[in-house]
Amino acid sequence: MARLKARLIYSNSLTAVNDVRYGCGFVAPDPVLLIILAKKQILVVSTMEQGRAKRECYSSVEVLTPEELLLPPKKRWDIVEQIQAVAARVGIKTVEVGFDFPAGIYTKLMEKGWKVQLSPRSNYPTRRTKNQQEIEYIRNSQRAAVAGMKEAVARIASADIGSRGALRDSQGVLTSERVREAVQLELLKRGCSGRDIIVAGGDQATDPHERGSGPLFAGEAIIVDIFPRNETTGYWGDLTRTVCRGEASSALKKIYNTVLKAQKQALKKVRSDVCGDEIHQHIVATFEAAGFVTGESNGKQVGFIHGTGHGVGLDIHERPRIGRSGEILSEGDVVTVEPGLYYPGVGGVRIEDTVAVEAAGCRMLAACSKKFERV
Amino acid sequence: MARLKARLIYSNSLTAVNDVRYGCGFVAPDPVLLIILAKKQILVVSTMEQGRAKRECYSSVEVLTPEELLLPPKKRWDIVEQIQAVAARVGIKTVEVGFDFPAGIYTKLMEKGWKVQLSPRSNYPTRRTKNQQEIEYIRNSQRAAVAGMKEAVARIASADIGSRGALRDSQGVLTSERVREAVQLELLKRGCSGRDIIVAGGDQATDPHERGSGPLFAGEAIIVDIFPRNETTGYWGDLTRTVCRGEASSALKKIYNTVLKAQKQALKKVRSDVCGDEIHQHIVATFEAAGFVTGESNGKQVGFIHGTGHGVGLDIHERPRIGRSGEILSEGDVVTVEPGLYYPGVGGVRIEDTVAVEAAGCRMLAACSKKFERV
Repeated sequence: MARLKARLIYSNSLTAVNDVRYGCGFVAPDPVLLIILAKKQILVVSTMEQGRAKRECYSSVEVLTPEELLLPPKKRWDIVEQIQAVAARVGIKTVEVGFDFPAGIYTKLMEKGWKVQLSPRSNYPTRRTKNQQEIEYIRNSQRAAVAGMKEAVARIASADIGSRGALRDSQGVLTSERVREAVQLELLKRGCSGRDIIVAGGDQATDPHERGSGPLFAGEAIIVDIFPRNETTGYWGDLTRTVCRGEASSALKKIYNTVLKAQKQALKKVRSDVCGDEIHQHIVATFEAAGFVTGESNGKQVGFIHGTGHGVGLDIHERPRIGRSGEILSEGDVVTVEPGLYYPGVGGVRIEDTVAVEAAGCRMLAACSKKFERV
Repeated sequence: MARLKARLIYSNSLTAVNDVRYGCGFVAPDPVLLIILAKKQILVVSTMEQGRAKRECYSSVEVLTPEELLLPPKKRWDIVEQIQAVAARVGIKTVEVGFDFPAGIYTKLMEKGWKVQLSPRSNYPTRRTKNQQEIEYIRNSQRAAVAGMKEAVARIASADIGSRGALRDSQGVLTSERVREAVQLELLKRGCSGRDIIVAGGDQATDPHERGSGPLFAGEAIIVDIFPRNETTGYWGDLTRTVCRGEASSALKKIYNTVLKAQKQALKKVRSDVCGDEIHQHIVATFEAAGFVTGESNGKQVGFIHGTGHGVGLDIHERPRIGRSGEILSEGDVVTVEPGLYYPGVGGVRIEDTVAVEAAGCRMLAACSKKFERV
């Protein structure tokens, strides 16, 4: 037998869980060991998971239990013992692991005399490139996001303006929490879960990851950022709109129109072989030309304080990033394009779509209105 | 300065994300670096997250950005550079990491001449022991689970029995999917998300992690396993009941009554200083005494094919396990007690409650009916 080499995955991280799902078809609620060989894969699961694993796994995957590997009871859940038992069974001589592989297993393998190669490449380099089926899955989640957005915007647009500008509807004060719940309900109807949806108005919206809480007000920019995951396929969508009930100040309108312009320009630049940083720097230049400064102000970061976009798939944030990292886009990438500007005291604006990268441009996965003021 | 030692966390795994949340108060959507010193902690986040991190973090946490660490643009997202910059700033001489720490960072630190100690203890050993506030959070999620369970059971119990025994209500055939959606809606109303809820009947229920799909039938055991996570606190609950619309066969009734008896006995045994395996073996003995065999049958694992329980907190599965691992329970542990029996062709039954371990016994966090047949 040749010097058979195997790639090891231990699915204790979110990315590794999704790698196992991508590579095997198996959804692992608890960490499992996956061993990738040139022509097949071996997944080690508990006897409890054996039946489901055999049903869910692709045909290239052999499902084994610690018992089938003849491990004695005390050694069954020792991952190094599992690796050694599989290695002996199929003749593995060297092993390779990725950046995320647990140091605890890595060092123990070395102690046992294994030569462990640490590889910079991801477990499944093809995972970044989506096929038509995967794009359809993401589109499906993106359509759920659009349905959720319509619901959110309808609630905000139809709200009455009460005392001190607080939004109200028939159930009372309209809060971030109530809008979020309405969005989640829409997602639920479409087979998607939507944790941590952002509905944040006013200064809350100037922290891009703040979920938002409490009453919403007329005249403020309300960021609604919806990222549903389809519970069956596991693929995400990602969509952000910013709306204002009533009239916005001219300062806010200028921010909105500048972000909108930058996003439209950026979408036109997305195609295969373009460097993400080129798109990002174009947005930076558009913002700067309009007088919008990025940097620290009163101890807080303001302006365009995040990257332009990220890949979307089985992870909500995955390769490639569109930004300073300078990754080059390729056909089959599915990415967000989401410039934003954040100024405490004025407000935060972000506009985000998810698109599939093609040779000559990009394809919007689901359309959604970009109207700002809802008078 | 003494030989200052620091514990490093890089939050790329679910457990590490929750460790950061537990130790700092910060919810990290993307991996961050946390450095634990004897008297303070240092969290490194992007400038975008800086404001939110300063707001959410406990007072013992210093929030720093790569820019504040004076890292040049190309090195800002290199975790090893971040670690070295913090080390230089506060005088760290040696570092310690846990089992899960990424091998990629571990080896690079070694290459840079760092002495990295790999520690078997968890990042926050106190995380396992819940204080009153945390128990209240878990109880809150458990109450949401009970509300969801009532909704699920009401739908099943009130369903009509149509042709070939399929359950029906005013909307048509009652499916796993429809019951799951009704449960999720109840959880949503209580501020909880509930991905991957199990509503599985008949042979589907004999795979403990099968979510279930399609029509539900009279006379079959339907497992409903609900694990809500409160979106604000991050704490989980975990509850399982098994119900049967109409009359169950005597074989199924015997399984149900045996699991119920075993679960009641097990709950009586839960207290601090008891070995989890003692509780587990007692259940095994109860099952065997009633004639229920565990092992392989027609290529499938049948019988009592999982452990008796697991800790519940910021992770849905955390320490301690109640089972063969033989961990000793302590006051402040919050654990599930969930014996089950699974026989393809007959059905699957599991009954699960979540309890707080006390010196003299255990406290049920939320009560819920254990009636099996719904005639």
